[in-house]
Parts: sequence; structure tokens; C-alpha cells
Amino acid sequence: MSKLDNERANNLKSSLLPDPEMGEPFLLTPGPLTTSFAVKQAMLRDWGSWDGDFRAMTADMRRRLLALLGAEQGAFECIPMQGSGSYLVEAMLGNMVPKDGKLLVLANGAYGLRAAKTMEAIGRAYHLLDKGDYLPPRGAEVADILANDPAITHVLAIHCETSSGILNPIAEISQVTYAAGRKLLVDSMSAFGAVPMEPDQIRYEALVSSANKCIEGVPGFGFALVRRSELIATKGNCHSLSLDLHAQWENLEKSGQWRFTPPTHVVAAFLEALKAHEAEGGVAVRGARYTSNRDVMVAGMRELGFETLLDARWLSPIIVTFFCPADERFVFDRFYELMKDKGFIIYPGKLTVVESFRIGCIGQMDEAIMRRVVAAAKQSLEELGVTSAAPPQAAFEERKKLNA
Amino acid sequence: MSKLDNERANNLKSSLLPDPEMGEPFLLTPGPLTTSFAVKQAMLRDWGSWDGDFRAMTADMRRRLLALLGAEQGAFECIPMQGSGSYLVEAMLGNMVPKDGKLLVLANGAYGLRAAKTMEAIGRAYHLLDKGDYLPPRGAEVADILANDPAITHVLAIHCETSSGILNPIAEISQVTYAAGRKLLVDSMSAFGAVPMEPDQIRYEALVSSANKCIEGVPGFGFALVRRSELIATKGNCHSLSLDLHAQWENLEKSGQWRFTPPTHVVAAFLEALKAHEAEGGVAVRGARYTSNRDVMVAGMRELGFETLLDARWLSPIIVTFFCPADERFVFDRFYELMKDKGFIIYPGKLTVVESFRIGCIGQMDEAIMRRVVAAAKQSLEELGVTSAAPPQAAFEERKKLNA
Repeated sequence: MSKLDNERANNLKSSLLPDPEMGEPFLLTPGPLTTSFAVKQAMLRDWGSWDGDFRAMTADMRRRLLALLGAEQGAFECIPMQGSGSYLVEAMLGNMVPKDGKLLVLANGAYGLRAAKTMEAIGRAYHLLDKGDYLPPRGAEVADILANDPAITHVLAIHCETSSGILNPIAEISQVTYAAGRKLLVDSMSAFGAVPMEPDQIRYEALVSSANKCIEGVPGFGFALVRRSELIATKGNCHSLSLDLHAQWENLEKSGQWRFTPPTHVVAAFLEALKAHEAEGGVAVRGARYTSNRDVMVAGMRELGFETLLDARWLSPIIVTFFCPADERFVFDRFYELMKDKGFIIYPGKLTVVESFRIGCIGQMDEAIMRRVVAAAKQSLEELGVTSAAPPQAAFEERKKLNA
Repeated sequence: MSKLDNERANNLKSSLLPDPEMGEPFLLTPGPLTTSFAVKQAMLRDWGSWDGDFRAMTADMRRRLLALLGAEQGAFECIPMQGSGSYLVEAMLGNMVPKDGKLLVLANGAYGLRAAKTMEAIGRAYHLLDKGDYLPPRGAEVADILANDPAITHVLAIHCETSSGILNPIAEISQVTYAAGRKLLVDSMSAFGAVPMEPDQIRYEALVSSANKCIEGVPGFGFALVRRSELIATKGNCHSLSLDLHAQWENLEKSGQWRFTPPTHVVAAFLEALKAHEAEGGVAVRGARYTSNRDVMVAGMRELGFETLLDARWLSPIIVTFFCPADERFVFDRFYELMKDKGFIIYPGKLTVVESFRIGCIGQMDEAIMRRVVAAAKQSLEELGVTSAAPPQAAFEERKKLNA
């Protein structure tokens, strides 16, 4: 509580230090991810959540997200909400699927299955199409299910299922959904901001995403982008007070305030991240950087003998799953620690049939960093005494399914 | 993505700058509040939520919160949860009150009424005792209600109702609740950490609070402190996947991880805040500082002619409600801006009968700051041309009720 060194603080505030090579590792994960120093620096002050300054920040953020979405003026609304990405999925389902509605959940991994579990928890009807670890839900099978079950009112698709890293065929799913007179909801958690989702190109009623993914903010809240005409009809649908998107929207429209205490610092960081996203060139340029990150990294890993779970056509620019090598000297926990010692935090796998791990391509990283990732993997393999990174035969069997 | 000035970054990390007199105003609000610079600085790096470093931080935080609570070893569990304080209240009610249970909500302000609205939203039975703007729920009337309604299984009390700033008589409420064989739940959002709540002194089954209150962290998550024997029995109770305290606890116990993405930076800040809370001397010393903040501020405001809504015996050390002066030259919005220009963000009132405003006593502030608050109020009154800060007659009528 003594006096602050003002000059030092001002220097600190005005500096726009770029990447945090402060001895901390890069996060090669699907978010939380490595953010810029400028984004974190935006958290170095306190805001009153009721004050006009913070209300202006909230309004600015909502405007920028709608601009990023690229919907027709006035067609969509942006509703930020406290909590993690899964809170936003629950909020979207609890608001958009009426109490007498029924949801078709298209699952090919942990996030699809979690959406089904959410429907279970909130006590609403659903039909689960479970494609296993990674097989994509295709238009024809979705059309079949919708034709056979007239009770289904909505379809939920996972844009990028980070369990495998697959980019699901949203356009195809949207087409059959609306051809059957149903409505599409999209969990675009790990893709929004890097993969185009203009509602004029691919029709849907709502998507949810989170602050700490491709916009490169820090975790603490998410947001729903909802077609205005649908949103108006959701009043009173929600099973929860906290997760009521309609109530949050009404309050934002009425007073400019979040209903309950917002994560002020995280919002400030996100606003900085949104500005950087625009400065970089928007969705196309962000997506191109991640794609190039992925291409450099996958090519390098293949040179070491690693194999990807997915065929090239299904690979997302978000995160890539690799099979663990067959060589029994490869122990994932040790590989993880060796990579961490070299400054890279990778991500464990989530497949049920074969051993795997994942490497993310999103966050404040570029090709140069990705080349260092590959070099670190090479060195880590050597330290483990692994001479070939080729996967076991079972992995190839697993892959065949995808191409059958 | 260029190189960082390492020396500068290291200087930054090691400096423990105290108060943020960086041109930003002090927040005289019930949280978000003014935090130390060290707390905000802890957010200047990124963590992988799956990584061992962050799991260790989560474990450390849970241990420290249990130590702060002061319960018998093993009797309580600490469950952090993403979202604002109201999410934690909803989580506590959705988990602790069974689907066939019934809750007595003791309301004397906005937060009590919000709890009733939460029960409405989640579709569980409740009885509302609404004492209006600030009158405290007393033991005798609680005992009466419990005697007349055997269906009631739980009682919810608001520890400090920040609508008026009243410190409710929790000990008295606890006594009659357990005498009637029922169970107490406490919303201690704005009091925990500054007002003692050892479960051996005042019995209850669970309390909830938030990162951005008396522990002086930044907003983004809250926590529940739940009696272990009760927690075990709550499996499957919750109306929501995201807000399921039991599931969150199971996951933390099993893997050390939060179920869904935690607000990593906010957690890092909170851990720093917990260490500062301990270094300051714990609950007693923190409470004494706030009490002295309040006493200095209230004495100064009274000298200017302002009157508090509450009698001294009901004043909390958290936030104080003042009547707006009768003088019609006093316009709250102008007073707010004049105070803000002087570096102090105050808080609007929430009373329904008379005009009021509030001044918080919590956060990184001491007596010296509170004297500056009073000086700013004096100057602001002069600038408005207000010669007497005495409240209107209606305010005195309002006060009489409290002492009737």
C-alpha cells in the first residue's frame, strides 16, 4: 500500500512485448494456449463491472465478434457468458432446444459425447449418433436419422472435434438438416476465428466458442452467436438461471452490463486479442497461419516416422493426433517430460483403441516455432532410445476404417 | 513472435509493486475490487490446464482455502468452479437441496431474491421469507417457519447482503435451523475471508464464495466449501452438467484437474492473493483492516452530514449504504462522475423506497485511502453546490423500521 514507481508502471503499460519466451513453455494444446504478452498485459488493471468504461469494453467486444462472424447486419446477436466452453454448450442446448424438443447429437469424440451427457443432465430428449473415436458424421446418415425420427427438432454438430483433431463436414450436415426442415446448432469451440463460419455460406441458428481458442485470449468466458429471430423465441426455455442466454442478452441490451460479475480482466485480454486478430488479417489469415503451422509440423513429424491418425482431407488446422510409436522404449509420460524440458507442452491422446498423443497448431506460434517442435521431438526420441517412430500394426488397421 | 527482452521480463516478474496508482481509480465496490499489482502480475504467463504445474497450483489453492476455513481436518472439501458467484450459489442449491427437498430462502435484498429465482429456474421447492430492503431475518421467525413447514429440509442464509451492506445474524439462524433438525447453506460471497466462519463455531453444511471478494483476487471463478459427509450424498442431484459440484470434486480427486477448462490466469492470481491473505495475518487481520476502513470512512461521511441506512450493530465491514442527501442539487450520476474524476469508483444503491448509494471497504485499501475518499466526497459536494448532505425525512422513517 505504499507509493508505486509510476515511471516503471508506465513503461510497463506502453511496452508491447511480443512472445513470452520468459522461460515458460509453449502450449501445443487446444487451449488454454500460448497468448501474446500484450494480451496478458491488458490484465494489469482492475475495472468496476458496473462502470461505464467496462460497459464500453463489453459493447466493443460484442460488436467485434459480430463483425468477425460476418453475418448480415442485425441477423445475429452476440452473448458473452461466464464459464468454460462446456458451459456455453450447455447454455446453447438449454436455451435453443425447447423442453419438448429433441436433439440429434453427432458425436465422434469426447465433445460430442459430453453434449449428449449434458442433455441427460438437463433432462431433455436426444438421439445420439456415436461414430466412435474419429469417423465423421456424413450427410446421408444424418438425413436417414432425421427422416426416421420426426420428433427431432435440432441437430448438434461439433465443428472441430479436438479428441482426434478432425474437422467435421459442417456444410454437408447443414444442408441435410435444413432439407429435412430441422435446425442446426454448432459447437465451434476450437475452430471459430480460424475456420470460416459465415451464416450466409453455411446455415445454422447458433454457434458457441470460447475466449481461449483461435481468438487467442485467456480462459474465463465464452460466447454464443445466435440468430436473432431464434433467440427471441427462447425466453423461459433455460433449465438454469446462470446459463440463461436469453436473460443475459436482455440484460446486456437493457443496461450494457453482464447479469452477474464478469471476469473483467479476462474480457480486457480478449478485447486485446480481438484487435490483434483483426490486425493480423482476420479469419482467413489466422487460419492460414495455423494451416502452415500444421503443415510444417506434420511434415517434420512424418520425416521422423510418426503417422497421423487422420487422412490429410480430415486434418484440421487446430490440433493433430499422432499414433504413439510401436517401439516399446517410447513411453508417453517420459516423452511428455522430455518435450516439456525443451519448452513444449504437448497433449495426451483420447483414442480408445490405440495409444496416441496430440500436438496443437493454434496460439502465438509460427512455422519457426513448429520447426523447433519437430527438432525437440527428434531429440526426445533419441533420448528415449527410440530408433523408429512408426506406429504399431493396429494403428494402420484403425486408419483403414476411415478410408473404407 | 520476435525475441523478448529477457532482462526486462525478469525484472517485471520479480518486482512486487504494491498498489496500482497507475492512473486507474480505486474500486469502492463489493468486487470486482482493487487488487494488488502482484496479484495481477501473476497473470503474465500461460499455463497448460492439463500440465502438472497447474495441477499443483490447483491442489495448493484447495489446501490453502481449507486452512483458511479452519474446519477440522478432513471434515470439509474445497471445490473450485468456473463462473461468477451466482453460478456457485446455483451449484450449491442444485447439489445440496435434493430434488424432493425444500429450501427456506432468507432474503433481505437482491442476493436473497436471486437465490429464490434460482430455485424457480431449476424447478425445486422453496419458501421465501422476504424481509424487504434490509431488515435482518431473525432466529425466532425462522424457527416459526420451520415449525410450520416440515417439508423444508434446508435453509439458505446470505452472510453479508451487499444490497444494504447488512451482516446477517448467521449464528442465530444456524442455531434455530439445527434445533429444528434442518441444514444450513450459506452464501458468504462477499464476507468469506474477512468474517470468521469456522464450522466448529457456527454449524452449516456448505458455503460458497468467490475469487474476487475478500481474498482480493480477480473475478472468473468461485468455490464451495462443503461438509464431506454431505457432499458424498449429493451424487446425481444436480440439474446441470457444468454446475455439478460432486462431479467436479470427483474429477479433482481422481486426476487433480478441473473437469472443464479452468480460468488458469485467474487461478494464478488467486493463489497469489491467498498467499498475501496469509502473510497479512489471515481472517482476523484482514477483517480488522476492513473494519478500520469502514470506521474511518463512515466517521468522515457522517461529518459531512451523510447518514448510513443501518444502525451500527448491523453494519458490515464489507460495504456501507448511505442515503442520498435531500438537497436537490445532489444528483447521483453527477456525484459518481465527480468521485471517479478524483480516482474513486463508488457503487449505486439498490433500495426501493429511498435514494441511496454504497461505498465498499474491501480490496487493496487502507485508512489513508479512506480519508482520501472522504475528502473527495467533500469536494464533490462542493462542486455540486450541495451545502448539507442530510437525508430526506423519508430516510429517517425507513431507518425507524429497523429499530422498531
